[in-house]
Amino acid sequence: MKLNHVIESQQFERADLEWLFTQADRMRNVVEAGGANLLRTKIMASLFYEPSTRTRLSFEAAMLRLGGSVIGTENAREFSSVSKGETLEDTIRVIGGYVDVIVLRHDEEGSAEKAAAVSPVQIINAGDGPGQHPTQAVLDTYTINKEIGKIDDLSIAMCGDLARGRTVRSLCYQLAKFNIGTIHLVSHPKLRMRDDIKEYLTKHDVKYVESEDLEAVASEVDILYQTRTQDERDDKEDEERFLVTPEEAAPFDIDKSIVQRMREDAYIMHPLPRKGEITTAVDSDLRAAYFRQAKNGLYVRMALLKAILAPEAA
Amino acid sequence: MKLNHVIESQQFERADLEWLFTQADRMRNVVEAGGANLLRTKIMASLFYEPSTRTRLSFEAAMLRLGGSVIGTENAREFSSVSKGETLEDTIRVIGGYVDVIVLRHDEEGSAEKAAAVSPVQIINAGDGPGQHPTQAVLDTYTINKEIGKIDDLSIAMCGDLARGRTVRSLCYQLAKFNIGTIHLVSHPKLRMRDDIKEYLTKHDVKYVESEDLEAVASEVDILYQTRTQDERDDKEDEERFLVTPEEAAPFDIDKSIVQRMREDAYIMHPLPRKGEITTAVDSDLRAAYFRQAKNGLYVRMALLKAILAPEAA
Amino acid sequence: MKLNHVIESQQFERADLEWLFTQADRMRNVVEAGGANLLRTKIMASLFYEPSTRTRLSFEAAMLRLGGSVIGTENAREFSSVSKGETLEDTIRVIGGYVDVIVLRHDEEGSAEKAAAVSPVQIINAGDGPGQHPTQAVLDTYTINKEIGKIDDLSIAMCGDLARGRTVRSLCYQLAKFNIGTIHLVSHPKLRMRDDIKEYLTKHDVKYVESEDLEAVASEVDILYQTRTQDERDDKEDEERFLVTPEEAAPFDIDKSIVQRMREDAYIMHPLPRKGEITTAVDSDLRAAYFRQAKNGLYVRMALLKAILAPEAA
Repeated sequence: MKLNHVIESQQFERADLEWLFTQADRMRNVVEAGGANLLRTKIMASLFYEPSTRTRLSFEAAMLRLGGSVIGTENAREFSSVSKGETLEDTIRVIGGYVDVIVLRHDEEGSAEKAAAVSPVQIINAGDGPGQHPTQAVLDTYTINKEIGKIDDLSIAMCGDLARGRTVRSLCYQLAKFNIGTIHLVSHPKLRMRDDIKEYLTKHDVKYVESEDLEAVASEVDILYQTRTQDERDDKEDEERFLVTPEEAAPFDIDKSIVQRMREDAYIMHPLPRKGEITTAVDSDLRAAYFRQAKNGLYVRMALLKAILAPEAA
Repeated sequence: MKLNHVIESQQFERADLEWLFTQADRMRNVVEAGGANLLRTKIMASLFYEPSTRTRLSFEAAMLRLGGSVIGTENAREFSSVSKGETLEDTIRVIGGYVDVIVLRHDEEGSAEKAAAVSPVQIINAGDGPGQHPTQAVLDTYTINKEIGKIDDLSIAMCGDLARGRTVRSLCYQLAKFNIGTIHLVSHPKLRMRDDIKEYLTKHDVKYVESEDLEAVASEVDILYQTRTQDERDDKEDEERFLVTPEEAAPFDIDKSIVQRMREDAYIMHPLPRKGEITTAVDSDLRAAYFRQAKNGLYVRMALLKAILAPEAA
Repeated sequence: MKLNHVIESQQFERADLEWLFTQADRMRNVVEAGGANLLRTKIMASLFYEPSTRTRLSFEAAMLRLGGSVIGTENAREFSSVSKGETLEDTIRVIGGYVDVIVLRHDEEGSAEKAAAVSPVQIINAGDGPGQHPTQAVLDTYTINKEIGKIDDLSIAMCGDLARGRTVRSLCYQLAKFNIGTIHLVSHPKLRMRDDIKEYLTKHDVKYVESEDLEAVASEVDILYQTRTQDERDDKEDEERFLVTPEEAAPFDIDKSIVQRMREDAYIMHPLPRKGEITTAVDSDLRAAYFRQAKNGLYVRMALLKAILAPEAA
């Protein structure tokens, strides 16, 4: 497969994702064998207008593990020509003249698409504000498939801040490409999944159930996907609308008592970083898959970079 | 040619520049062939005391395209030993012990020269405050030569903020090394080119004309070099002295009506970033050379790095 | 020797240090020969929660000189998941999944140990707040040994801010591993070495003398190790407790008159950065070893990285 820009979760069809899963498995082997030299002459630019050490470093490590190299900026907003009033489009046109691929993290929804429209090289969306985070979604579906061996027919709970969480939105788009069982949307009423995603699920014949009872849902599902309260992009109005007290949030935290209710063959995922919505006491449980999930980000991003920059290589 | 420190535009003689143009052409071939391995064991430090994503990333890409590697800091002022009170000289002496060449961007005029005086390795001035930006001047003259095929006898207009723009100053120094035709200095009266440059041009027998009529000048010249209002280094007094209202600035903007007056074989250049002084409607015109100009920065910086770090290599 | 985590100065026994000195000498040869390819497939993460250009760049150059590559963040505190409330342990667990070794600079004492407890890869402590800076101590003892040819029986003065200086503390731990002669602790009464180190020296049979008379001490010692006032981590209470006027600090500065009292075969060291506690007039004196010392940081860090990442390589 030859990949073009990576902009949104739903651009990947089931066959694309399955192919990427296989590629990511191969990349795991590459890492274990000490890396490869496939992208030796290639340069990736990481342009981060928002902080995201985890995502940035996993992309950069992915590029280096394949023999490529990296230039970039940690905080494009503060340090770049942006402070001199340059448009994103101009920045992309110029940087795109220096490198072979651009990984873009931006705080405005739709910015990746705007960038792709003018870029001389491929754009990978590494998160565009409240919009999408497609490579996170690929690593999430890859992790589900890796931990359980399949995605069809699974029962998956998404829990926490479903209103503002970008990852659960992107994940829903991809799960809808499979014959997924039931999606349980578990949240405080104020933090419910937005209607656009629910309509998307309905339109694609995905069964979903909304719930406020994590204890009950935990005992049923194959995957319990937890998320943190994501208030860093809120304006004044959002802050009030989504305000949940610690007492109201507590029943949606995962601790050992929740884990005890889970099936033995179920798994807990989390896009990380976490605050306290999964207690550290859970970490040693074999069902805690979130650190394996984070590491899968490396393999999936290697697979995507290879698909973009060296599609013909074996 | 074996290059020593790159400190100011006027250090390059005509023969040096013509040699660099040939080298930059060769570097274009290197990039198109997928890079080279000439600087495999070399390390460049990029020390940026001022933000400049464009310049920094083009230097870093240049180093990587030649097989070298890069360490650096995006904002030396905030993150470095500067905050502990260290002098630039001490910083240079120490970092110069770790690397093979230092690219320095600083906010004080004369800092590159101060650095070169103590550095154990070559310094490349990537802009020293209101002072010089010699590699920008080389890429500008390279672009003129590349677009038109020569520099001698050309008629070149520089437009916009000639009072504070560092690039037009550095460019004048280099054009004076050629048998340039006429330089048109087009600006609002408050933003006129400073006397030192005008005296330099006179002293070197370069004919220049000051004008406030962009429409008239646009129809005459081979190159129309536009610049942005550069107020980010102003103190209170400068702010008042150079204050130009949007109404006063507007006649110096380049839009389609200005471009229509230009000759068919003329070109528009801009060091970028731009604000609104060239409208985006102009971008698709073949005479718009500014994105090609930006990309030329990569080739010119590769040529300079090779001349410093691997002068003997074929 | 196969190195595990590098957490504190005193973890190195005399034999370890002597072995590292030999290795650092070999690394000096490697640099002079244009670098090596020993760590070609390895990635180092530099996670800096506090600014430290010098330390960070020397680690990064060390990794590159050995053929490895680097990812990292200049200011983890501001730009990372920390701002989203993540614990250091979670960050380390995730980043440790992407790379082969982590160099950590943090503002809290004990953070390197906390990181090592959960890290999937080795941690190198590059300074943990007021705590330790073990690689600085190794480069300091290496420099003493290199300049003078031995460490046993030497008379060493440490001067300046002994109360807050991390490097003098770490250095004392390592000197105690040798049969050092006398340690002179020269400071204003308010900036005396803390009791824990003095007790450590006593316990390990190291003779030390406290003094306020730099002139007298300078004439006696083999090494005069100067430090700067280190007030950047002070809270309100510390600020008052350690407050020393410029008049009170002046007698502890090293200028030409102090150097003239020194023996011809003695050396001046300083961990850098300096403010004014060594005047620049001293720099040209052959006894001024501090820039050589800084450069030794490169060789010592190469030796440590090789010992961790390629212990079996010749």
